[in-house]
Amino acid sequence: MWEKTKAHIMSCERVFTIFLKWVLIGCLVGGIVGVIGITFHWLLEVATTFRMEHPKILWCLPFGGLAIIGLYHLLGIRKDRGTNFILVAVRQNEAVSLKMAPLIFFSTIITHLFGGSAGREGAALQLGGSIASFLGRIIHLNEKDKRIITMCGMAAGFSSLFGTPLTAVIFSMEVISVGIMHYSAIVPATIAAFIASALAQKLGFLPVAYTLLGVPEGLKLKLALSVGILGICCALASMLFCIVMDKTSHAYRRYIENPYIRVFVGGALMLGFTLLLGTRDYNGAGMDIIQKAIGGEARPEAFFLKILLTAITLGAGYKGGEIVPTFFIGATLGCVLGPLLGISPSFAAGMGLTAVFCGVTNCPIASVFLCIELFGAKGIVYCALCCGISYMLSGYYGLYSEQKIMYSKVKPEFIDRNVA
Amino acid sequence: MWEKTKAHIMSCERVFTIFLKWVLIGCLVGGIVGVIGITFHWLLEVATTFRMEHPKILWCLPFGGLAIIGLYHLLGIRKDRGTNFILVAVRQNEAVSLKMAPLIFFSTIITHLFGGSAGREGAALQLGGSIASFLGRIIHLNEKDKRIITMCGMAAGFSSLFGTPLTAVIFSMEVISVGIMHYSAIVPATIAAFIASALAQKLGFLPVAYTLLGVPEGLKLKLALSVGILGICCALASMLFCIVMDKTSHAYRRYIENPYIRVFVGGALMLGFTLLLGTRDYNGAGMDIIQKAIGGEARPEAFFLKILLTAITLGAGYKGGEIVPTFFIGATLGCVLGPLLGISPSFAAGMGLTAVFCGVTNCPIASVFLCIELFGAKGIVYCALCCGISYMLSGYYGLYSEQKIMYSKVKPEFIDRNVA
Repeated sequence: MWEKTKAHIMSCERVFTIFLKWVLIGCLVGGIVGVIGITFHWLLEVATTFRMEHPKILWCLPFGGLAIIGLYHLLGIRKDRGTNFILVAVRQNEAVSLKMAPLIFFSTIITHLFGGSAGREGAALQLGGSIASFLGRIIHLNEKDKRIITMCGMAAGFSSLFGTPLTAVIFSMEVISVGIMHYSAIVPATIAAFIASALAQKLGFLPVAYTLLGVPEGLKLKLALSVGILGICCALASMLFCIVMDKTSHAYRRYIENPYIRVFVGGALMLGFTLLLGTRDYNGAGMDIIQKAIGGEARPEAFFLKILLTAITLGAGYKGGEIVPTFFIGATLGCVLGPLLGISPSFAAGMGLTAVFCGVTNCPIASVFLCIELFGAKGIVYCALCCGISYMLSGYYGLYSEQKIMYSKVKPEFIDRNVA
Repeated sequence: MWEKTKAHIMSCERVFTIFLKWVLIGCLVGGIVGVIGITFHWLLEVATTFRMEHPKILWCLPFGGLAIIGLYHLLGIRKDRGTNFILVAVRQNEAVSLKMAPLIFFSTIITHLFGGSAGREGAALQLGGSIASFLGRIIHLNEKDKRIITMCGMAAGFSSLFGTPLTAVIFSMEVISVGIMHYSAIVPATIAAFIASALAQKLGFLPVAYTLLGVPEGLKLKLALSVGILGICCALASMLFCIVMDKTSHAYRRYIENPYIRVFVGGALMLGFTLLLGTRDYNGAGMDIIQKAIGGEARPEAFFLKILLTAITLGAGYKGGEIVPTFFIGATLGCVLGPLLGISPSFAAGMGLTAVFCGVTNCPIASVFLCIELFGAKGIVYCALCCGISYMLSGYYGLYSEQKIMYSKVKPEFIDRNVA
């Protein structure tokens, strides 16, 4: 009896030591990635403001593309796999080069400065993941601990940019192998995301947050039916986005072998489309358009054009990420479909944003948290229903080809397959 | 190309058919389990009110116990495994007898009527799970689909009682094999929980919801540190609760072989303690005490006495569940510790409630959703931190011995072990 109690106390002590270690590492990662992420956030805002004030800079987009490819070649990266390499780093403990951090940092700023259609959170994940992975090597973590620290870095990077710490933590634990939650990272990732968000708030970067209009009180079956149909549309839009992204990238590679020519042509195409459409709505991340959609205003063709132009931008070799474009696509689609389905356009935009995010990332729980952190908890059951349906019906598509879906979406069955 | 597209469309059609099937099943389970769950909810309230108005009924508790054991024997159940059998039903597709539904229904009402210290959600999970599993057999679902319908039943049962549909859905998907999310149930379980909650609301049963006082604005590092310490205390309380429950149950079985004598002695013990303590605070579920703790008022010894008296009640053979007692323990502990740590007692009670729930069920995500559905989304990052720490430090203890923890709490490593 005494022996057993002693063994138990020793095991508690060991766990507590591990806990303290991870608290410290969480603080370290949160602090370092936070500061870099916030600098990145600030420079992106500067670049966006500069572009807005000097719209002619768009003409330089093809040359900006050349600079990006040049940078990658200069640092010896021939084939960039985007956010995928972070997923592989966590799952298979493949080493992440620290070089990735400055590369994604500057190439994303170039993309935004010159008006490519791209996001910023893919960049934040890569930035945070590669810095944290490097820290892990410096402090000689073992193989398994390096995976945890990489997830902490992802969470800190994501939350320093969006100010949504819980979404960042859940997303980092959920996205790698869908159906498996990497809870071993829960404490350090939460601490890292908390510190990164707290630093951002301290420095005056307010978290991204919107107010939805027309959110219903209570549970109404008729509304649930409309939300279900919206969920189906979001699943279709998610599939369309993934397919267009994939096909565009393949077409680029097939028809234009030289990456410099490819990025130049992509930049020129983006420039041409912008002039043709006569609007700057699709350049950069488009946070203003998301804001408008959530206010209840969006053009019917916006979601499709954003899909196309994001595929043209990112497929050509520009950098940033696919998630903010996803927000754009979902919010504008929801805003347009809402009134047709008897849902307030603003509420439908919010649900669309999260449900398309869910469809392309296959992360239903992170999506519901996203909804809570962006819009608050009211009407959350509808949002969860919309996300659940988008998850179930969006098939095995996804933005990250290295993502694995561990369990079938329709049966409790282990499948362990890569997304298409 | 055309062949591929055709195959793709056919696969989409197949998934859509499965989707429609599950929408219908979700509605069916939500409706049937909802109505029964609401009746159960109503009868429990009637029983509780009757007990409050006739405190002398407590003297009959030992005889109520005899009735419970008699009922189980009458229907041929010699060894009741409580909520465990539902976990096994989902994981290994063990058939659940429909008999379990009336048994748990009436035995929980008896326990509450006569003043045993017990919850009601274990009952709700068993009620919902066994009814849904029976429906699955009637409509000839295959083995895998039967697991999904059982999860739907759990979600509907839980949410008809608490009015927290999202917590119900996530809990049902998360509790069985911690670390694996059974997303294949996400759409039908959400629909079932939605319908059960909507029915309850329609019939005037308002969702359980509280207002926390003193929730801080923004992210403060000093407060996070205090919350961290609260999380550690919640982990210790969770372990203590699991250990006391386990040891008490073993001691009962060891020293009193006859289940009738056992339940009678347990009832007499509960009666004796109640008279000795001179308070009725620990009889029944104790929702009023939870409410008071969240208002900022609790006795320092309350959490420990609730642990003890719940173990005495449930270990002896009374029925109900362990989760509402867990809420009681967490809320009173948090309320008392809060001011010592510089946290508002009300806010600390809310975090304590969710973090102890997390520690004993090993369900961090369901816990954070619980916090959101009971208290709203404000201050949710602190709550997540508290739950994360409680999860990490509460060891491999748990209330359900059939629960499996699939991944180590401190390493990204597959362990597949039962909780202690």
